[in-house]
Amino acid sequence: MTIKDYMHDLGVQAKTAARELSKTETHKKNQALLAIADALNQDRERLTAENQKDLATGKQNGLDPASLDRLALTPKAINAMIAGLEQVAALPDPVGEMTGFSYRPSGIQVGQMRVPLGVIGIIYESRPNVTVDAAALCLKSGNACILRGGSEAIYSNQAIAACITKGLMAANLPVSAVQIVATPDRAAVGELITMNRYVDVIVPRGGKSLIERISNEATIPVIKHLDGICHVYIDEHADINKAINIADNAKTHRYGVCNAMETLLVAEAIAPKVLPQLANIYLSKGVELRGCLKSCSLIPQCLRATEADWHTEYLAPILSIRIVEHLEQAINHINEYGSQHTDAIVTENYTAARRFLREVDSSSVMVNASTRFADGFEYGLGAEIGISTDKLHARGPVGLTGLTSLKFIVLGDGHIRQ
Amino acid sequence: MTIKDYMHDLGVQAKTAARELSKTETHKKNQALLAIADALNQDRERLTAENQKDLATGKQNGLDPASLDRLALTPKAINAMIAGLEQVAALPDPVGEMTGFSYRPSGIQVGQMRVPLGVIGIIYESRPNVTVDAAALCLKSGNACILRGGSEAIYSNQAIAACITKGLMAANLPVSAVQIVATPDRAAVGELITMNRYVDVIVPRGGKSLIERISNEATIPVIKHLDGICHVYIDEHADINKAINIADNAKTHRYGVCNAMETLLVAEAIAPKVLPQLANIYLSKGVELRGCLKSCSLIPQCLRATEADWHTEYLAPILSIRIVEHLEQAINHINEYGSQHTDAIVTENYTAARRFLREVDSSSVMVNASTRFADGFEYGLGAEIGISTDKLHARGPVGLTGLTSLKFIVLGDGHIRQ
Repeated sequence: MTIKDYMHDLGVQAKTAARELSKTETHKKNQALLAIADALNQDRERLTAENQKDLATGKQNGLDPASLDRLALTPKAINAMIAGLEQVAALPDPVGEMTGFSYRPSGIQVGQMRVPLGVIGIIYESRPNVTVDAAALCLKSGNACILRGGSEAIYSNQAIAACITKGLMAANLPVSAVQIVATPDRAAVGELITMNRYVDVIVPRGGKSLIERISNEATIPVIKHLDGICHVYIDEHADINKAINIADNAKTHRYGVCNAMETLLVAEAIAPKVLPQLANIYLSKGVELRGCLKSCSLIPQCLRATEADWHTEYLAPILSIRIVEHLEQAINHINEYGSQHTDAIVTENYTAARRFLREVDSSSVMVNASTRFADGFEYGLGAEIGISTDKLHARGPVGLTGLTSLKFIVLGDGHIRQ
Repeated sequence: MTIKDYMHDLGVQAKTAARELSKTETHKKNQALLAIADALNQDRERLTAENQKDLATGKQNGLDPASLDRLALTPKAINAMIAGLEQVAALPDPVGEMTGFSYRPSGIQVGQMRVPLGVIGIIYESRPNVTVDAAALCLKSGNACILRGGSEAIYSNQAIAACITKGLMAANLPVSAVQIVATPDRAAVGELITMNRYVDVIVPRGGKSLIERISNEATIPVIKHLDGICHVYIDEHADINKAINIADNAKTHRYGVCNAMETLLVAEAIAPKVLPQLANIYLSKGVELRGCLKSCSLIPQCLRATEADWHTEYLAPILSIRIVEHLEQAINHINEYGSQHTDAIVTENYTAARRFLREVDSSSVMVNASTRFADGFEYGLGAEIGISTDKLHARGPVGLTGLTSLKFIVLGDGHIRQ
């Protein structure tokens, strides 16, 4: 069987399962989610053993420590997968929700019903926990999914897949509701992202180059996340303590994540009061600082930033700093150099907060909170299938609602158009 | 200046205007809409004169009567454009609406704000009224737009553009909020649909071949409408009178429209009571009937339908008819052969209605109402920029809301992530 035939078989089966899932009752979907959690709990030994194979291969192939870390199915990682399933089971079912029904002058009543998208194709790299998180969100939102994990996690993913199958069978749901591509052949990805007849949306998760390649080659709509060039702007009316806590947390809580701050903007009027203190914190934590001319004059250890710095997502202990004249310049900087991911203002001024919220065109805009909160779990979405920096369909963390859309419902009583 | 440079200039200007429009107050947008209506009203003579040039060229080039009809700016068509502007001005402004704010265990408060998409590129064929309808919807929803009408309407569109410019100036809004591509060169379309840096979404309106070509070549997300293969299913529990009125209206009210019924499905148990009567109506109106074997046995004048008929959007006085055993077979037929546009059931049975609404995967699903109601105006959206048969972002008639998306808002009080 060719890769093409294999993938098309997965597609046909997914489409059939999707029709079934779209009308499955909530309690059955929850039953499946909890049964998958049970299966993971019972199969801990096998999961660990299979994961060891992937880890051994990874070490042989010279995977870096960070990648090996992401690949490891530790007892804690298995617990997190189980907890994730329980959380998604506890979330309200978005499917079938009906809203906005009102009568029109013609006499018909028009509203909308929330419905699954159909078949979701998810392409991701080393983390095997994505297999469970993605399957759980798709299942709960009534979508079938085809998951294509990294070849470096293939044994781990197959072991997880076996648990998912057990859970689906326990709830009497079609096992092809969640299918995991069993071949490491890269041609499988090429098929998946062009099977318009079977797949309704593609969600790539991973490094920027993976996502760019998939977006360019896919003929199916892609929900994607490119850069996370996030800003914190310390307004002249900021509370100094809040500003320092937030700017510290946004940069140093974790470096390699998309919602970490990459550029700090500071209003000129407040810079002398806040920047030297902040610089000491950053420097004590080993963060390299690159600033504009004015920033450098306040921070002796600051290197000069170049134009490229404002465009850069470091994902590392490096921070660019720019002193701006006022709110307007901060907003313009963010809309010009940002990636429409997450940006925050620190201010006590009502009007500045309101302007920032309205005028910054990013998927998450915050007042007096750390950019690190941009996350499906923190937002109460349960988990997230990804964070979208697209403007269409879903912006920001994509949870259950982002995996659905609305169809129109018209209720009449024999009404015809005049 | 090359076409490429020209289009990129439009793109840069549109982007700048979009930032301005996204924060423009509602009353100014309404003021502009009403000022455009005034300008159209005052320029009736010039509009008619310019339209005559297009009509003369159209006749010379052998445009068919239907196309000439769509191209004509009659006094009635001008009145309709004016009324459309007034309606859009009267609609609530969707931009800035904030919803769903709730506190999270971490202490942050999370909700969403409705925001414009940015720059909309609209590509359409002969109807010059689209120029005004599209501009009005984009303006009200805070989006800038670049409009590319058919070359056959170029004088009419330029005359309308002059009125739009007057209206924008009267409200002190950037004139590049609405830009009309002034060249008939087809290369302009190629540029427009690949200017990812400046354009956020493309809406093609017109024949299927235009839309397919644009979807295939665009690198920007497309909101599109392909086929309208709409069904009416007469359930065994249908009220006979409602069934006949709806099936008649859905087919014969207008033939060339996307929400006209193309296939009639009838439950076997009710077919003898309803089909002969309906057939008489259709035949008296000159509708050609193509049916399954069972339909043909009830209707002597019925031709035999082929497999291809179930896949065909006739847009003509032709109807395919299939007798099905039960609701399930009807739903399966629609999900198999339909185009996910608009489908209706006629029934008095609660459970059948509920199943049909949930299980038919179309952008509009109706009970006891004619498919002809699938329309932005009938749904109360004011007007529509198009009808989407996509599943992502917007399904069905796309009005103001479909031209916006939601960003997350996080309100804190100095909150940091633990």
